[in-house]
Amino acid sequence: MGYFADLRQYLTRLEEKGKLHRFKGEVVKETRGVPEDQRKSFLFENVVGVKGRRYGNRVLMGCPASREILALGLGCSPEQIKEKWSQACLHPVEPEIGATGPVHEMVLEGQDLEKSGLESIGVPVDTPGFSGSVRTTTQVVTKDPETGTRNVGQYSGHFAGRREMRLAIAPPHHGAIHHVKWSRQGKKMPVAIVIGATPNITLAGATPVPYGADEYAIAGGIAGEPVKLVKCRTVDLEVPATAEMVIEGEMTDQMEAHAAFGDYPGYVYEVGNRFVPIMRVKCITHRRDPIFVGFDIGYPPTATTVLECVAIEASLYQHLKRELHMPGVLDVACHYSGGARNYIVIQMKKIAPWDPWQALNALTGFGAMLGKISIVVDDDIDPRDPEAVNWALSFRMQPHRDMRVITHRSPLLDVSAHPPDCSNEERHFPSPSGASALLIDATRKWAYAPVGLPKKEYMEQALAIWEREKLPKLDLRQPWHGYHLGYWREEDEDNAQLIVTGEYQKLWEKLGRNRVPLRGPFEA
Amino acid sequence: MGYFADLRQYLTRLEEKGKLHRFKGEVVKETRGVPEDQRKSFLFENVVGVKGRRYGNRVLMGCPASREILALGLGCSPEQIKEKWSQACLHPVEPEIGATGPVHEMVLEGQDLEKSGLESIGVPVDTPGFSGSVRTTTQVVTKDPETGTRNVGQYSGHFAGRREMRLAIAPPHHGAIHHVKWSRQGKKMPVAIVIGATPNITLAGATPVPYGADEYAIAGGIAGEPVKLVKCRTVDLEVPATAEMVIEGEMTDQMEAHAAFGDYPGYVYEVGNRFVPIMRVKCITHRRDPIFVGFDIGYPPTATTVLECVAIEASLYQHLKRELHMPGVLDVACHYSGGARNYIVIQMKKIAPWDPWQALNALTGFGAMLGKISIVVDDDIDPRDPEAVNWALSFRMQPHRDMRVITHRSPLLDVSAHPPDCSNEERHFPSPSGASALLIDATRKWAYAPVGLPKKEYMEQALAIWEREKLPKLDLRQPWHGYHLGYWREEDEDNAQLIVTGEYQKLWEKLGRNRVPLRGPFEA
Repeated sequence: MGYFADLRQYLTRLEEKGKLHRFKGEVVKETRGVPEDQRKSFLFENVVGVKGRRYGNRVLMGCPASREILALGLGCSPEQIKEKWSQACLHPVEPEIGATGPVHEMVLEGQDLEKSGLESIGVPVDTPGFSGSVRTTTQVVTKDPETGTRNVGQYSGHFAGRREMRLAIAPPHHGAIHHVKWSRQGKKMPVAIVIGATPNITLAGATPVPYGADEYAIAGGIAGEPVKLVKCRTVDLEVPATAEMVIEGEMTDQMEAHAAFGDYPGYVYEVGNRFVPIMRVKCITHRRDPIFVGFDIGYPPTATTVLECVAIEASLYQHLKRELHMPGVLDVACHYSGGARNYIVIQMKKIAPWDPWQALNALTGFGAMLGKISIVVDDDIDPRDPEAVNWALSFRMQPHRDMRVITHRSPLLDVSAHPPDCSNEERHFPSPSGASALLIDATRKWAYAPVGLPKKEYMEQALAIWEREKLPKLDLRQPWHGYHLGYWREEDEDNAQLIVTGEYQKLWEKLGRNRVPLRGPFEA
Repeated sequence: MGYFADLRQYLTRLEEKGKLHRFKGEVVKETRGVPEDQRKSFLFENVVGVKGRRYGNRVLMGCPASREILALGLGCSPEQIKEKWSQACLHPVEPEIGATGPVHEMVLEGQDLEKSGLESIGVPVDTPGFSGSVRTTTQVVTKDPETGTRNVGQYSGHFAGRREMRLAIAPPHHGAIHHVKWSRQGKKMPVAIVIGATPNITLAGATPVPYGADEYAIAGGIAGEPVKLVKCRTVDLEVPATAEMVIEGEMTDQMEAHAAFGDYPGYVYEVGNRFVPIMRVKCITHRRDPIFVGFDIGYPPTATTVLECVAIEASLYQHLKRELHMPGVLDVACHYSGGARNYIVIQMKKIAPWDPWQALNALTGFGAMLGKISIVVDDDIDPRDPEAVNWALSFRMQPHRDMRVITHRSPLLDVSAHPPDCSNEERHFPSPSGASALLIDATRKWAYAPVGLPKKEYMEQALAIWEREKLPKLDLRQPWHGYHLGYWREEDEDNAQLIVTGEYQKLWEKLGRNRVPLRGPFEA
């Protein structure tokens, strides 16, 4: 079997793996702690509005609810995603354009579009009670008007009427660069919003790639086969043939103020007077019985956090390890608690003492809003386990020697950088020198004595006894036995051997040979 | 029923609560991941040596393996410990001295002591394969020779022969001050090492109290009744009448080098040429069928980590809230990952912006080796949850504004401060300015928009549906619903209400009234 032909094949696979919960009862779309390995996606098959309206679409939520669910969609394990991404960047597969596809089974245009339009789609509300928006957060397809280069980016679209959306593309993103170019030519930028593509396309849209790289080709590299595209009906853009739904349109010359909504830092984004460009819908196409993919966003982790963590991890890994030739980089871990961007741990086996700092400096250069707290740890520290990272911070670094604070950063939506009612300019770069980041080299600076746990052979004996005594099931975390870290003298080994063989007398005699007179306790 | 009369009554209570595992099979004493709420203490009832020797004592390990196990021993919940401690400091109960007690049931002295002495006790090895020591880490009783004031401190004793121990009392501790005073008078300090006291005494011994305060009286304050003491047989010191075992002796005028052993930072302590004073054993007294209490120590958490976390939390809470009159302090959380001392989070409801900094400065003044990483969080952040703390670090502080690094600290056993083979002086205060600490105010600096989760009423509905659908059991963590943090305009509330009542048209019309012409995207 090749790659998933569409979202539905992927959902079938999730269901086989016990990772999808089908929800057949009625769910009111305006109203929403499980360990990561038990998290599931939810398919709501009977969506009604708070006023009783029935919708023709189903709604998929929490996809991906975990790294495992996303990895299932990429045909690999969670640990393999970064390498799969890196290889897909090195070996992209060009997409194929066909005449038609399931995404064109149903078309809403003309009078029908005018009468109901976006209102006919059952869209979930992400933070009911606090949100003033219903929205999509999916792949937005645009083209560079000068070169014809395509971009597929993950941006938010907020419904602003039956035929209008506020399309928020933040300045550094490629879609925003396209918009500037179209506006300078005095033309309206064509846009296609793709809902319900396969996970390879979702990941490619969410991941930063060099300007001009084709996300569809990288998605093809992940799948190992070309993504099948069709031309849109009303704009000169290409969309996946098997997507669940596409909203076609063009940017207008107007802007509108946002209402509040939940966002990645885990707070409602208090939008102030933030004005966002309006897109005019020209046509909606979709499959029969379409699935609307809601991307929940707010207090992390949400599906958006999972996707963005994996996207940043994969692109930063590719950047450090391949583009910058740092072979010591083993893993990049974006923590959910940092909303993907603000707490990043790089795991590395350093060769030179400056290796961690080259990685930290490269990270700060990779993005102005990435890595507010950035930490490098050694290869024996699990970079995804916050307690393991805190252990490294506690005993492998000294603040005055191994930390640096850098300013002139972008806070993106980090509200600790500015009060809620300041101007947009002040938000982007709070005076006098922007937001800041904390860089920490938490690797060992010299040889250490062994980790203070019994040697592996004794722990293995203890595990056998644990099982025999029917004690609670163990979920072993690293480290579960002692191991060497470079400092251990022959004499230390001899002493330890005398202890485990019960030769206390010999050890006591040996140590007792070098007694010295009592000195003051502060010399002890 | 009053307080536990002895360790055995406490163990009976632990067994009733499912917190004790009795291990009847043979266990070789030279030769250990479970969630905290499932952790148990272990009583090994059949201890043999690697060379086949059978020992007359049982061994208790992992006591306390969790805050809950320790709290059971103090007659309160884990959350109540700090208040219980604070009240006991304010209302101590003087101990009572009786003629005799169970601790004197068996006496080892004279020829018997000479023949077997400390070798007759079955003592567990904490990090087999790496440790060159068998040791006690329990209550050490000493007296100030000038004032007669008693001290009960938790220090390590390492067996150095049948009748000799290396007794390591680090310089700032009260037992070390006593030792200096005795030495200056040219006399040998009498010492009693108490093994298997009740948990109130264990906690009091491990917790820093003002010089001259009687730990037995604070332990009485916890119990709500006097601790019963007896006079030692060979030294002028008092020990708990129901302790399992007491080693009596006096300090000699000699010192001996340590061999390596596991310690609180989670590494083997590479002792270099660290010389430690020798104590000469004069007598061992114990109960019939005595229980030796092993304090495991090494990669955290161990029983020692749990005890030291609780001890530092209780004393720092008492210091900040009572001694320094900071009513905003709600909790102090020492993280296991920091080996109790190196990662400390203070939860506070601040009134003035400088409150968090007063608390941080007070913490640095409370101990030179406490709080290498010290963080203040708001009252809505769980200070014990590393992910909640990382969320606060990610979105409630800016490094250049809210952090300070201070130098001239003691690293204690933190090996990141100095290479392993440097001198003892350099270890204590690495040049040029000691170890350092990182202080962080991670509280909100202004009003925030609500936490980005659905309002409580919608989450309650969702929980009911979750249960109805028989989805995996939830272990809800804070926050599980959105709540206000000070910034929310009438207009925001109106918009959110229009969304949850399905009045999209009204909202769209309202927002659409203020459209403006498109500006460049970098102003958006």
